[in-house]
Amino acid sequence: AHPVFEDIGTSIFEVMSRLATECKAINLGQGFPEALEPQEMIEAARQALADGPHQYPSMMGLPTLRQAVAENARRFFGLEIDWEQEVLITSGATEALADSLFALLQQGDEVIIIEPAYDSYAPIIRRAGALPVTVRLRPPHWHLPFDAMRDVISNKTRAIVLNNPMNPTGKVFTLEELRFIADLMLEHDLIAIADEVYDHLVFDGMCHISLLSLPEIRDRVVRIGSAGKSFSLTGWKVGYVTADKRLLAPIMRAHQYVNFSTPPALQAAVAAGLRFPDSYFEGLRNNLQARRDLLLDGLRNAGLKVANVAATYFALADIGDNPFEEDDFAFSQRMTREAGVATIPMSFFYENRDVISHVRFCFAKQADTLEEAVARIRNWT
Amino acid sequence: AHPVFEDIGTSIFEVMSRLATECKAINLGQGFPEALEPQEMIEAARQALADGPHQYPSMMGLPTLRQAVAENARRFFGLEIDWEQEVLITSGATEALADSLFALLQQGDEVIIIEPAYDSYAPIIRRAGALPVTVRLRPPHWHLPFDAMRDVISNKTRAIVLNNPMNPTGKVFTLEELRFIADLMLEHDLIAIADEVYDHLVFDGMCHISLLSLPEIRDRVVRIGSAGKSFSLTGWKVGYVTADKRLLAPIMRAHQYVNFSTPPALQAAVAAGLRFPDSYFEGLRNNLQARRDLLLDGLRNAGLKVANVAATYFALADIGDNPFEEDDFAFSQRMTREAGVATIPMSFFYENRDVISHVRFCFAKQADTLEEAVARIRNWT
Ligand SMILES: CSCCC(=O)C(=O)O
Ligand SMILES: CSCCC(=O)C(=O)O
Repeated sequence: AHPVFEDIGTSIFEVMSRLATECKAINLGQGFPEALEPQEMIEAARQALADGPHQYPSMMGLPTLRQAVAENARRFFGLEIDWEQEVLITSGATEALADSLFALLQQGDEVIIIEPAYDSYAPIIRRAGALPVTVRLRPPHWHLPFDAMRDVISNKTRAIVLNNPMNPTGKVFTLEELRFIADLMLEHDLIAIADEVYDHLVFDGMCHISLLSLPEIRDRVVRIGSAGKSFSLTGWKVGYVTADKRLLAPIMRAHQYVNFSTPPALQAAVAAGLRFPDSYFEGLRNNLQARRDLLLDGLRNAGLKVANVAATYFALADIGDNPFEEDDFAFSQRMTREAGVATIPMSFFYENRDVISHVRFCFAKQADTLEEAVARIRNWT
Repeated sequence: AHPVFEDIGTSIFEVMSRLATECKAINLGQGFPEALEPQEMIEAARQALADGPHQYPSMMGLPTLRQAVAENARRFFGLEIDWEQEVLITSGATEALADSLFALLQQGDEVIIIEPAYDSYAPIIRRAGALPVTVRLRPPHWHLPFDAMRDVISNKTRAIVLNNPMNPTGKVFTLEELRFIADLMLEHDLIAIADEVYDHLVFDGMCHISLLSLPEIRDRVVRIGSAGKSFSLTGWKVGYVTADKRLLAPIMRAHQYVNFSTPPALQAAVAAGLRFPDSYFEGLRNNLQARRDLLLDGLRNAGLKVANVAATYFALADIGDNPFEEDDFAFSQRMTREAGVATIPMSFFYENRDVISHVRFCFAKQADTLEEAVARIRNWT
């Protein structure tokens, strides 16, 4: 056996961001927003830096932030959370995922991941000694295939990783799909890691239903959230884990030895953000929805096939019939170089890299940026 | 086999900090300094927050910080480092350790750790599928036992974790000891994780020799540093890893899926700190040395047996013959409750918890705090 981390390359998000910089391209690849940072939170962080403290906070996170995580989840997603026992602050959702997988998996376990899937899941599952088992959603509707889910379950299956709302498809899982997952979990004694970092970024009046809100599986779900995504501050690296205290206990231990704690000034500012009035979260959704519409219309006018998107920062374009017969990575690289617009090839969301028909655009950018990107693509195609 | 993180408790540093808060005790337990934060760095971080960016930086870290890490290591420790290929920024030294161990260890490997040892090493080694094998240093001199080191090596031994300067003993390894380790590494084809977070905190004109500075093993050593410790900002969680690019490659991959990146504003401020003139680092050493002297004198006057300390934040008191025949943990707890001074029981630096004769004091506190702590202990003993 080869060490897990020797067999993988640089994350595609970093690869495409570097290429964008090198080519001076507009970066619609890596998922980060433009010009949406709440000034109030930046001021809160600056104030907290001026006031201190600057030393280790509790490795659970600041009490005020843990309370705010619980309150926000109650206000928006109807969750009842005991902030003292059920909330842990981490240095970003990526760390939260790693902590959860390292805490809850053992050598020989199998874990279901639903492709297209975020690129950190499989390597961390493998590094935890477990085996990722994939189920694929299919375009254009990306419905959860119930039969395939049932088929991959074995007596080694321990967990399901569910990204909802889902990157890169922009899919919001339906209550029916979530209920199916819950039944499967109960029937086969599984847990779920619910990566819900896009929970606040859902459009057209649609509802995000947290997997943690299904009462039958309340004690089997680890819910992960991200201040980076909810407050357009991806560089701050503040995430949160919410779970029943028996599930959270080993995750806390993993966290204490994987990272220990998160800068207190940033935690204090995120606590303020989570307490923003409803209007902030509505404004963010509306703003991103308008950006989505701008990009989708523009790409369609430029002749690209783009499906609708219900949530997240992302839209997929189907480039399967491109005249160069290129795969998605070649297409992405060429578009970055020639058109000056960077995207993410979707094949990197598949362990086998064999779905080569789509590229992902991030629409969380200013109108100017999106208009310029669309104009460049129109001139190029 | 039980999941690794289910079998461990809350870190002793957090346990004693909580007890200190609860008892309103002076916290000389967990290793964090008081009133030494460089205002210039706090201002630099505030300015960087005002200026942005707030989105993901490169997962390698900011170029200016990686350069500064290399420059600082050259200036103070004579290291020649290619900052582009050999430096990675992490969210604290704890993450750097986890990344390195997850990257470089495989199922079945054995790893030598030298006790008393920091409490994150063994759990992460186990979680990486490897086995920690311990060698013990003995008070009062804490010399490296060459024979014991040789004896524990097997054909499965892959790595040595070396904490130098060493927490909790305050030991600075001698060139002779480092050379011995280097020879062992060459003879048995080992690598080393050199946890050198206290590199700048060495007293009495003594020299810290980085393991990375030994030319024969330059490509076998992963050196870990900590802005928290060098700049008295332990809550900021900025660490760095320096290693030959072949060793660093898998560590970068581990980092990208364990945490991804570190807040850019804090990185920018740490870059400024690493470029401070020599006088800053000298001032820090002198200041800590004076604090050390204050605590050691005070504890000795209060009747405690305390050995000399060459480095770090820490001094050990030998309580092996205390009249209550208590173990170190009971002693620590009682002293926190009764005297109002919290310490760390040294047994938590041993996997078997069987060395129960010492408690650790952190002297990185203001004179007032140390004087008050010493007065309380004098009244209590
Ligand atoms: C951690 S970099 C990836 C950011 C992101 O969530 C994405 O682009 O999908
Ligand atoms: C991460 S909490 C522990 C701090 C420390 O380095 C110590 O007290 O030894």
